[in-house]
Amino acid sequence: MGKKIINKLCIIGVGLIGGSLARALKKAGVVGEVVGAGRDVAHLEKAKSLGVIDSFETNISLAVKGCDMVVVAVPLGAMQAVFEKIAPVITKDMVITDVGSAKGSVIKAAQAAFKSIPETLVPGHPIAGTEKSGVEASFPELYENRRIIITPLETSSPDAISKVKSMWQACGAEVVETTIEHHDEALAATSHLPHMLAFSLVDTLAKMDAKNEIFDFAAGGFRDFTRIASSDPDMWRDICLANGDALVGMIEKFSDDLQLLSKAIESNDSKYLEETFSRAKKARDEFCDT
Amino acid sequence: MGKKIINKLCIIGVGLIGGSLARALKKAGVVGEVVGAGRDVAHLEKAKSLGVIDSFETNISLAVKGCDMVVVAVPLGAMQAVFEKIAPVITKDMVITDVGSAKGSVIKAAQAAFKSIPETLVPGHPIAGTEKSGVEASFPELYENRRIIITPLETSSPDAISKVKSMWQACGAEVVETTIEHHDEALAATSHLPHMLAFSLVDTLAKMDAKNEIFDFAAGGFRDFTRIASSDPDMWRDICLANGDALVGMIEKFSDDLQLLSKAIESNDSKYLEETFSRAKKARDEFCDT
Repeated sequence: MGKKIINKLCIIGVGLIGGSLARALKKAGVVGEVVGAGRDVAHLEKAKSLGVIDSFETNISLAVKGCDMVVVAVPLGAMQAVFEKIAPVITKDMVITDVGSAKGSVIKAAQAAFKSIPETLVPGHPIAGTEKSGVEASFPELYENRRIIITPLETSSPDAISKVKSMWQACGAEVVETTIEHHDEALAATSHLPHMLAFSLVDTLAKMDAKNEIFDFAAGGFRDFTRIASSDPDMWRDICLANGDALVGMIEKFSDDLQLLSKAIESNDSKYLEETFSRAKKARDEFCDT
Repeated sequence: MGKKIINKLCIIGVGLIGGSLARALKKAGVVGEVVGAGRDVAHLEKAKSLGVIDSFETNISLAVKGCDMVVVAVPLGAMQAVFEKIAPVITKDMVITDVGSAKGSVIKAAQAAFKSIPETLVPGHPIAGTEKSGVEASFPELYENRRIIITPLETSSPDAISKVKSMWQACGAEVVETTIEHHDEALAATSHLPHMLAFSLVDTLAKMDAKNEIFDFAAGGFRDFTRIASSDPDMWRDICLANGDALVGMIEKFSDDLQLLSKAIESNDSKYLEETFSRAKKARDEFCDT
């Protein structure tokens, strides 16, 4: 068992991400007590019966009391309301982080809720997850060898940053720091845009007349390609609303390139097709090994 | 070992697809001799040393001699040249099938090469493969529980159809029949379009200034989503040229829907986003189980 990093942890939103974090910290033996917070009592009871949390509380202001670490793992659209519940009871020993997939919107929510952003707030985003959701899908190895991006603010204290880093490292993750702007653009490119393409493709096909026969002919490549279209619709609505500017910019950039490719197919431009596919294959083989 | 279905098989193009077919038929014990044909002697020697083929011949007209089954597993762009080599030596006992990913273009190639299409020609397409290519990547289980689409012509004889079916069934595959038009449309939707999206996405990102940092933040979903962008560029150039009309039509349909989604993001249209993502998730969960 590791040295305790956190005495009392509050996880607000005990789903796949929050639940897996609690499981990992417990497995590593670096956390004392884990309090789950949320709105749905049945769901919190489930989390408790699975051993993910030790106790729960639906009143967030009460739930965070006495905690030296608070992890906000709710959908982006619920961040501000949660921060507003924490604001009146926050102490200087209470480190707060989140797991939101878009960081600009989290900062805006924090500014609105806290007025002056607390120095113990360190925004974060684990680059991990599956297309599944809910505490039932959580498992302690989710963060092993995964990257956690943190985007500390100018106000963030070194101690708070260090504590958030140690927490994630105890889960087997690698913590990297970057700016909010770079995070939101990179995620729009590598995560939010691919999700839009997968959702949109499946929806386009599902609307076709012969949809049953069409899906019947889908191969393994289609299954892999569309796996992310099984992700939680509400979470993705929130991500679109939270990172809309960067995402719309990426969709435009992508659409322009797709139009050029379509024109090349239409005009039998072998050279353009070969070059594009070769460049893409090379880049993909370089950056992903499987 | 099964009952012999084929006495002497010629595989023209001993790569992932042709090589895996030979391995599967040998494993099932349903084939006598396997002759490999192609242009590259070193490659054919490799296939022989791996035990995929028993002998090889670079002259296609000689390679097919005495064969009761000829499987043309070359890129779509090479089909017509291969058919032209077979045409002068074809016999009424020589069943011919292919594995091309677009069937309309194969028929055109056959019409041009044979003048009158032989009744022993039964076009086919195994819905199987990986992003890898080459005989080294071939394995006998590739077709197990996979679908093989055959698109028999009016001219195709029942005996030839039956022999092609039996061959694939011996590999553990399920054989389904459809029309050339439906095959080409369904494949444009479920395979050719997704490949274009994956190639195009990776290329768009690779062209960005911060491409290294961008790929660094890619998660597991990105790896799955872009796996098909590691496919063989030449093969995909040929598929684009062969099934261009259906594919361009699908790109248009997809792009229209993507534009609507982008507009919904821009205008914070929660309802549109929720509904689209939910419909897509439902369709995807219904048609794919993992």
